[in-house]
Amino acid sequence: MTRDLTITEVRLTPILVADPPLLNTQGVHQPYTPRLIVEVVTADGTTGLGETYGDTKYLELARPLAERLPGRSVMDVNSLFGLDLAVDESRVAGAVDAGGLRGVQSADKLRLSVLSAFEVACLDAQGRALGLPVHALLGGKVRDAVEYSAYLFYKLASDADDWGAALDPAGVVAQARRFKERYGFGSFKLKGGVFPPDEEIAAVRALAEAFPGHPLRLDPNGAWSVETSLKVAEELGDVLEYLEDPTLGTPAMAEVSAGTEVPLATNMCVTTFGEIKEAFTKDAVQVVLSDHHYWGGLRNTRQLAAICAAFGVGVSMHSNTHLGISLAAMTHVASTVPGLHHACDSHYPWQSEDVLTERLTFTGGRVTVPDAPGLGVELDREELDRLHRRWAEDDGGMRDRDDAAAMRAADPGWRTPVMPRW
Amino acid sequence: MTRDLTITEVRLTPILVADPPLLNTQGVHQPYTPRLIVEVVTADGTTGLGETYGDTKYLELARPLAERLPGRSVMDVNSLFGLDLAVDESRVAGAVDAGGLRGVQSADKLRLSVLSAFEVACLDAQGRALGLPVHALLGGKVRDAVEYSAYLFYKLASDADDWGAALDPAGVVAQARRFKERYGFGSFKLKGGVFPPDEEIAAVRALAEAFPGHPLRLDPNGAWSVETSLKVAEELGDVLEYLEDPTLGTPAMAEVSAGTEVPLATNMCVTTFGEIKEAFTKDAVQVVLSDHHYWGGLRNTRQLAAICAAFGVGVSMHSNTHLGISLAAMTHVASTVPGLHHACDSHYPWQSEDVLTERLTFTGGRVTVPDAPGLGVELDREELDRLHRRWAEDDGGMRDRDDAAAMRAADPGWRTPVMPRW
Repeated sequence: MTRDLTITEVRLTPILVADPPLLNTQGVHQPYTPRLIVEVVTADGTTGLGETYGDTKYLELARPLAERLPGRSVMDVNSLFGLDLAVDESRVAGAVDAGGLRGVQSADKLRLSVLSAFEVACLDAQGRALGLPVHALLGGKVRDAVEYSAYLFYKLASDADDWGAALDPAGVVAQARRFKERYGFGSFKLKGGVFPPDEEIAAVRALAEAFPGHPLRLDPNGAWSVETSLKVAEELGDVLEYLEDPTLGTPAMAEVSAGTEVPLATNMCVTTFGEIKEAFTKDAVQVVLSDHHYWGGLRNTRQLAAICAAFGVGVSMHSNTHLGISLAAMTHVASTVPGLHHACDSHYPWQSEDVLTERLTFTGGRVTVPDAPGLGVELDREELDRLHRRWAEDDGGMRDRDDAAAMRAADPGWRTPVMPRW
Repeated sequence: MTRDLTITEVRLTPILVADPPLLNTQGVHQPYTPRLIVEVVTADGTTGLGETYGDTKYLELARPLAERLPGRSVMDVNSLFGLDLAVDESRVAGAVDAGGLRGVQSADKLRLSVLSAFEVACLDAQGRALGLPVHALLGGKVRDAVEYSAYLFYKLASDADDWGAALDPAGVVAQARRFKERYGFGSFKLKGGVFPPDEEIAAVRALAEAFPGHPLRLDPNGAWSVETSLKVAEELGDVLEYLEDPTLGTPAMAEVSAGTEVPLATNMCVTTFGEIKEAFTKDAVQVVLSDHHYWGGLRNTRQLAAICAAFGVGVSMHSNTHLGISLAAMTHVASTVPGLHHACDSHYPWQSEDVLTERLTFTGGRVTVPDAPGLGVELDREELDRLHRRWAEDDGGMRDRDDAAAMRAADPGWRTPVMPRW
């Protein structure tokens, strides 16, 4: 090989993408969500793409990192993680990210969430330069398509989308039906913690009746006490594939786990390698939902999967609002993990905007694993520029995701709930 | 990339390589040890090399596997591990391999030990075809040279080597001195379990006096009771880097671990992914010594290292008799693991024969990480043929390693010891 894979330029483009008013226990999604698009350019003219969270504190860490990369090879991804990034501790000390929805913020998680976009961009560049899909760089796919679940939300009505409101069991079922018809999803996850548990139990019951035999999940983002969690597990045990983060923190999750046969999943109490030992030793969780951004990219996600396999813990994937670069990345890595026994989550169907020339599609609830070089997606530079201008011109406080602020706009009396909420 | 990386041919060459009469608790190394050399050839004419154990039961599994590989891509290493190899359970049920020195034999370990040679050969072929060193395929080296420790053995005299006998503290120190002068090793491991513990304690004390400040290790291959293990740990606690497999089995190791501050290392009670959970949960070991053959190759070794890191357990590498292909493989993977805090073991300096055109060398106790494509080593086909003829013509029972049989040749009254021996 004579191609020169030395990095010559790194471009960072913060953008704002439209997001529907989806409800969660901390509030509601703002009309726009910040994302960061990373482009790594090599001496031979190859460009690799990555994507991660775009809030200010991520940008603050990404900018100095980007300046250090020229001169390195895109092959050197291990040593990326040895770079000493100066994480501003005041940004993370005791902070909860996006109102706590991303679990406890830590310096390690912030660092890895930034690095992940650079790792993915390096893998994309490797693949393009070598003529290999990213999955081949990860040892090759073991399946040709990756299954995703429908990600249902309680939702406010909005002029910006045609989904309408979903605020009760009938609304949730209607949303699920549309998801199933349009994309063929075979399993359903409901974002809970929005209404009192009995209402959400009723919604899950309604889903079970409407879609018998389909795996169902409920995720209140830690809004419940141990007692409430056990009550919900008892009432929905016969229809739940798993209960996701019913309560906050590993000790409380371990208490719930000890009291129910319903598997517990998490993307809140196990979000970094340092949190694994306690959770696995205490048998606090049965499924870890990897967000490849949190964990530092695709190779770390594979390592997480190996750890889970060794401890008999299931693994699947978590999603926050993201675009097609990250969906492609998720799909590539998911295609290489043998023991992926649960459909992955993805917000992607909720995103009406993307920075790709061609969007990824769900058919039969699955995304076909791209076999083109790299991630197999192409950047739409005009659209990237448009969404970047929106970011550059924003004066409405959208550059940092704040679901509580958005909720107060809809409901001036809204107060961020004290946890456990129920 | 237009290269066709489809496998067109797989060549298996069993060989016998000269081995000095090194003593261990199960007997002594035979004059020749079986190894299997694997060559994977692709449509574009690339050949990748791998090496593993060569005893009959490994060959029996390797042959049908080799027949299944043509038509697959050398990039598809994940799915290699999903192939259903028909392990002959009668070969492993209750068996102890090489007299127990390789830990408890299991179907999984046998399967992975065979697959490892194919995985390494595929990675070598990938690297040669893509023009990249194997370490780059593993994410890139994080160090330019890998440190090894001197592997000291009690030893019988032999006309076939000029090392002479080493049967007491003075002999061990003389051997260590020669290792240090010739190769620059900075740390020393003594294979123990051969003489009563007090004699081995005296040998380690003599090493500590001769080489003050150098890390020392003692490995009796599980020959001691918990009580004896604790006594040795107490007596040598001030000079040992770690004590390796003092006693057999995770429960006994956990007892020893609970009673001493001396770190315990293992390549016997944690040798497959299925053994990790119990050992880590019980804090039975503080360092896992990966043998990349046991664990199924270089990528699995990296996954083991990730598991160890998440649980605060150290990682380094184990060695049985091996040649330069495996030393190159060990060096590549070791160069990519960030938290490698202990020098790796290698029998390589004891091997007077190899199948490479150019042997790897130790300088300052280190092997420089090859940056040439693939593993960076070349096969000496004439030497391979010569060592294969030795295997083909063997009628002395050397095709299966049997340290007890070799010991009976030297000492007709030898009986395989009942464990714990002391």
